[in-house]
Amino acid sequence: MEHRIKKLEQILKNDRFAVYNDIRLVSIGIGEAIAEMPVSEKHLNGVNVVQGGALFTLADFAFAAASNSHGRIAVASNASISFFKGISAGKLTAIARELNSGKTLSHYSVDIIDENENKIAYFTGTAFRKGEY
Amino acid sequence: MEHRIKKLEQILKNDRFAVYNDIRLVSIGIGEAIAEMPVSEKHLNGVNVVQGGALFTLADFAFAAASNSHGRIAVASNASISFFKGISAGKLTAIARELNSGKTLSHYSVDIIDENENKIAYFTGTAFRKGEY
Amino acid sequence: MEHRIKKLEQILKNDRFAVYNDIRLVSIGIGEAIAEMPVSEKHLNGVNVVQGGALFTLADFAFAAASNSHGRIAVASNASISFFKGISAGKLTAIARELNSGKTLSHYSVDIIDENENKIAYFTGTAFRKGEY
Amino acid sequence: MEHRIKKLEQILKNDRFAVYNDIRLVSIGIGEAIAEMPVSEKHLNGVNVVQGGALFTLADFAFAAASNSHGRIAVASNASISFFKGISAGKLTAIARELNSGKTLSHYSVDIIDENENKIAYFTGTAFRKGEY
Repeated sequence: MEHRIKKLEQILKNDRFAVYNDIRLVSIGIGEAIAEMPVSEKHLNGVNVVQGGALFTLADFAFAAASNSHGRIAVASNASISFFKGISAGKLTAIARELNSGKTLSHYSVDIIDENENKIAYFTGTAFRKGEY
Repeated sequence: MEHRIKKLEQILKNDRFAVYNDIRLVSIGIGEAIAEMPVSEKHLNGVNVVQGGALFTLADFAFAAASNSHGRIAVASNASISFFKGISAGKLTAIARELNSGKTLSHYSVDIIDENENKIAYFTGTAFRKGEY
Repeated sequence: MEHRIKKLEQILKNDRFAVYNDIRLVSIGIGEAIAEMPVSEKHLNGVNVVQGGALFTLADFAFAAASNSHGRIAVASNASISFFKGISAGKLTAIARELNSGKTLSHYSVDIIDENENKIAYFTGTAFRKGEY
Repeated sequence: MEHRIKKLEQILKNDRFAVYNDIRLVSIGIGEAIAEMPVSEKHLNGVNVVQGGALFTLADFAFAAASNSHGRIAVASNASISFFKGISAGKLTAIARELNSGKTLSHYSVDIIDENENKIAYFTGTAFRKGEY
């Protein structure tokens, strides 16, 4: 088990898009994960709030960590996101939880909150499980 | 009209998250827009395909361009994406079209295709219209 | 307040599609609601499990109750549903909770569970608020 | 091939939830299907427009027809719907098209239109393919 989580952490460290955009893993467990992103100017869109794609990427990274935590490679098939509140600074945290874990498909929710626990966005994702990693 | 599109192009050029991730506007019209992203190593995830967040950001940028094309600031309220095919290189194009344009809410679809017109992902988004820009 | 909930209960009782399909309100509070549907043959699809539309309708009804609980007419703009498990009999319960309540848009999740608290489906919905009822 | 479509038509005729709610198949082809629903009082919600669940069920039925057209049982894993316009009478038509057809997962869009070709709602769905029927 611990061996597998180590292997998964290596895969996640190799996520160059997450690294390039200052997203990092905080913790990971079976069916759950937490990631964070300190907001800086590079995350902002044309009207000076964090771009929807940056919020999605943060949530998607936590979702990837959680959905891959069972020892099998899981790839996203679908995801939905609702945006609640524009934000321009501070640290954002994404908390992924397992909604359901089937044989082949599994489903997750991710809350994105700011440092004052304001809800910024809500993400749901479905992953398709392949072979072991 | 042309004046407005110029103003919108300025807003989109100021999207630092898109710029930082090599996404650029190709064209824009009323209710439609095309954006592109040449894939490079920075867009890859831990298993060496373009990260879902990079695909989402490309689609979201085209959606933002199309949904703001009516002269009013439009902010995303919801978006969904389905991932069809992993890809590791080449240029990706996002084509946004208007599904419906209401007084306050408007809805868009975005196809992401590769250079051989393979479908890579499909995005739908809802925008909420605010005041004029 | 109590007056408003009474008025809302009248509106919900007038939902002929819910009534016709044996869906009924169990309880309602500010930002939350519970509905139930005893499964019978009329809810089944061609492969003998409850049709996705029946599950959606149950969730949508609980979502409508919760999203209208603030004294203003709220109409659905978007909804997503994930299906976890086919089911053919028993009573299904939908539990709607408020994810976020904005000035104009509000967001809800709905869990559908069976009598053994197995998760059957998960729904999220966005509502657009209009005038008072 | 024709044999398979016949078998699928039998499965769809056995969809008791669709039948009970006056939804019927108009046509079916490989990766596509059309269904219709003449609106009557039983489809209305508490504010006298067609209930979201009725629209979803119509779309879901067309999606089921299209996604099962390849000779394998396909079950819905996720679906999203956007509602464009309330409607109270007339005949609604759902047109399902294949967005992508993978080995195990396939993706569809469904347009719901009224008799004047006004867009009423837009649905996307993902199906998971099992064994042959």
